[in-house]
Amino acid sequence: MARRGLLLILSSPSGAGKSTLAKKLMVWDTSLRFSVSATTRAPRPGEVDGREYYFKTRPDFEEMVRTGQMLEHAEVFGNFYGSPRAPVEQAMAEGRDTLFDIDWQGGQQIRNSGLGRDVVSVFILPPSIAELERRLRSRGQDSDEVIAGRMAKSQAEISHWAEYDYVLVNRDLDATFAQLVSIVEGERSRRDRQPDLADFVRGLNREFDAR
Amino acid sequence: MARRGLLLILSSPSGAGKSTLAKKLMVWDTSLRFSVSATTRAPRPGEVDGREYYFKTRPDFEEMVRTGQMLEHAEVFGNFYGSPRAPVEQAMAEGRDTLFDIDWQGGQQIRNSGLGRDVVSVFILPPSIAELERRLRSRGQDSDEVIAGRMAKSQAEISHWAEYDYVLVNRDLDATFAQLVSIVEGERSRRDRQPDLADFVRGLNREFDAR
Repeated sequence: MARRGLLLILSSPSGAGKSTLAKKLMVWDTSLRFSVSATTRAPRPGEVDGREYYFKTRPDFEEMVRTGQMLEHAEVFGNFYGSPRAPVEQAMAEGRDTLFDIDWQGGQQIRNSGLGRDVVSVFILPPSIAELERRLRSRGQDSDEVIAGRMAKSQAEISHWAEYDYVLVNRDLDATFAQLVSIVEGERSRRDRQPDLADFVRGLNREFDAR
Repeated sequence: MARRGLLLILSSPSGAGKSTLAKKLMVWDTSLRFSVSATTRAPRPGEVDGREYYFKTRPDFEEMVRTGQMLEHAEVFGNFYGSPRAPVEQAMAEGRDTLFDIDWQGGQQIRNSGLGRDVVSVFILPPSIAELERRLRSRGQDSDEVIAGRMAKSQAEISHWAEYDYVLVNRDLDATFAQLVSIVEGERSRRDRQPDLADFVRGLNREFDAR
């Protein structure tokens, strides 16, 4: 049966496993659409326009905001980031769900964008801060100063956990992923996400009446 | 983490697979508590008091209703049926979920009992009325007259599908069971069903502050 696509928002502090979980979801259900963000920051080596980000000039970005083409946007470390609206609305119309890997500011804006009733939001918590820092350091890319900045940002991010529909503590990646899949499957079975049910039941009633 | 037990209500017309799904759920999670109904009807051969039903006299049943010991009750085919409140509240306090195999009247009363926010309700629809009748007849126990009565009751039951949180069309038992498990797992991950999360996050914050 046709279904209205939902907006699945995943948020967490950096290092809690959000991006790994998002990637696993995309493999689990290839009909999911990942919302690629637009940004004004410069591409890093290896990043491809339209894959990691849509790379925009600041004037272009500001024009998209002004004309309502961004579902949400924010300035982080001096650069703009945002979620373009058009591909999300197209996916919804096709009954496909869109996955957002965004922070609490983006989540808040999307919940208040007029698409709020189509939002399912999940916050991923680390099992401990020691473990969060260990995961950040194990990437081996960042200086102590960058790590300290990320940890401060993590504390601020975690302070918004209570704005989310679902909260998972990521102690074990496979177990957390299984919980996440259950959340998505469960939400898809909600009555109010299945607009074709009313027609289906009318069909059952016609069958009753024809007996 | 400790969790508030939820009230899982399964309703469907007779023959849509509700009781089979309920039994599979009880095997899947042995911590689930099945709500055994009280009734004034006479025991059938093989039925054990406290297993299929709590068999009550009419005065005893009416006394339980009068003193608020029934979460819901109704008269069906001249007999009273109801869900005793005490075991449900005990299970909730222990963080155990209670499974109710009841009809729309019972579901409606439990949602309005003051425990409404702990209710998760699932309606099971048959794929077709022809299939529903086939399943009823395949039990081979009932006369044509009884089948006709059940079919009329089924149509009335189906008319209440839109009062439920989740709706599943039971085309394939294993697939429907997997969906039901996802609904339960997903609901258990909801923020508002995890009262210990606030303490957990306070612990993370203490860890941040101690760095």
